[in-house]
Amino acid sequence: MPDRCPILYDYWRSSAAYRVRLALALKDIAYDRVPVDLVAGEQRAPEHLARNPQGVVPALAIDGLMLTQSLAMLDYLDETRAAVPLLPRDAGGRARVRAIALAIACDIHPLSNLSVLERIEAISSPEARAAWNRDNISRGLAAVEKLLDHPATGRFCHGDAPGYADCVLIPQLYNARRWEVRFDHLPRIAAVSQACATLGVIASAHPDNFKPASAKTA
Amino acid sequence: MPDRCPILYDYWRSSAAYRVRLALALKDIAYDRVPVDLVAGEQRAPEHLARNPQGVVPALAIDGLMLTQSLAMLDYLDETRAAVPLLPRDAGGRARVRAIALAIACDIHPLSNLSVLERIEAISSPEARAAWNRDNISRGLAAVEKLLDHPATGRFCHGDAPGYADCVLIPQLYNARRWEVRFDHLPRIAAVSQACATLGVIASAHPDNFKPASAKTA
Repeated sequence: MPDRCPILYDYWRSSAAYRVRLALALKDIAYDRVPVDLVAGEQRAPEHLARNPQGVVPALAIDGLMLTQSLAMLDYLDETRAAVPLLPRDAGGRARVRAIALAIACDIHPLSNLSVLERIEAISSPEARAAWNRDNISRGLAAVEKLLDHPATGRFCHGDAPGYADCVLIPQLYNARRWEVRFDHLPRIAAVSQACATLGVIASAHPDNFKPASAKTA
Repeated sequence: MPDRCPILYDYWRSSAAYRVRLALALKDIAYDRVPVDLVAGEQRAPEHLARNPQGVVPALAIDGLMLTQSLAMLDYLDETRAAVPLLPRDAGGRARVRAIALAIACDIHPLSNLSVLERIEAISSPEARAAWNRDNISRGLAAVEKLLDHPATGRFCHGDAPGYADCVLIPQLYNARRWEVRFDHLPRIAAVSQACATLGVIASAHPDNFKPASAKTA
């Protein structure tokens, strides 16, 4: 089974899928990509629910398994493909890296989810929706900046090579830009963002590379 | 360092802290507990921000480190204290267990966070706040039920011993009860809940054991 090419079921602009594209790229794992159009509601189609009962992206078919949840995929890839490790070797370093990733994946990203924003708009207004999202990303990134104020931060979130936490931070920064939330006043995040911008392997996972011709520019 | 007793900074009713109390109890790790009163705002005091720059609970002082983010703590405890493993040995099983935990920690719990509920009420109404929370927990548990519809589910979320995913599910079920969200129509979750209810080690981590005399009954 391991010789079959993994298949990533993703949506070009999903941050969770973008995390996994980054991990696959950093580890130089070839994969096939099957788009699931969230705007068209394809995530609720029976064939996608069979892959991911939560009805979200991504799903990753690999080694005869169908994985869900992006962070679980990052761990799985690191446990089964040792080349280019995403997590540090020491348990303390691993805990730090996971804490940074979870501070984004649990404390920022879920509140910016499309379905959440739609519910906010439904119980309030479009202005409240935008303010909610910008405020949430802003506060969340300020907290991540504090976590990066640590001797183990290097050119990247942990040391001088991109890894697990960067795979989660970069998509969140893409989201921040999309919602016009600035982070240039957060020097550590800005520095990691700049370091990532120099790497072609990171650029290869960018949503714009996967944007379908039919997608709106917004 | 490892011979010093770990210190858990927690709040009795925080689900994230409850996850870590469960992991410590399952692994039979002795620890000291320092309460941080979220209602009194102690999480924003300088001494707590020095432990956890996100200004939330829990924080765990262990092995000379100060850890944040409950799931990172579960991983750390499992990596450094091998007795009573929380995660299965095979990478596929680990990915499944992590996916269940993350489906709760990323997709249910963040939307029920006190600060989020307060913001919902501020932009809408107390009724909208309660409806938001109940709807979110309901939908989220229905998705978790589907993840448990899997041959690896046993008496507990994965096999016949409580572990990582149960440490995350049990606090979420406590929250569901608190908000009067029923889950007796979800047979797999109800069965895991019942199996957990038979174990004294799980009961030992219950919030009621840590409720301060001053706390309101609500």
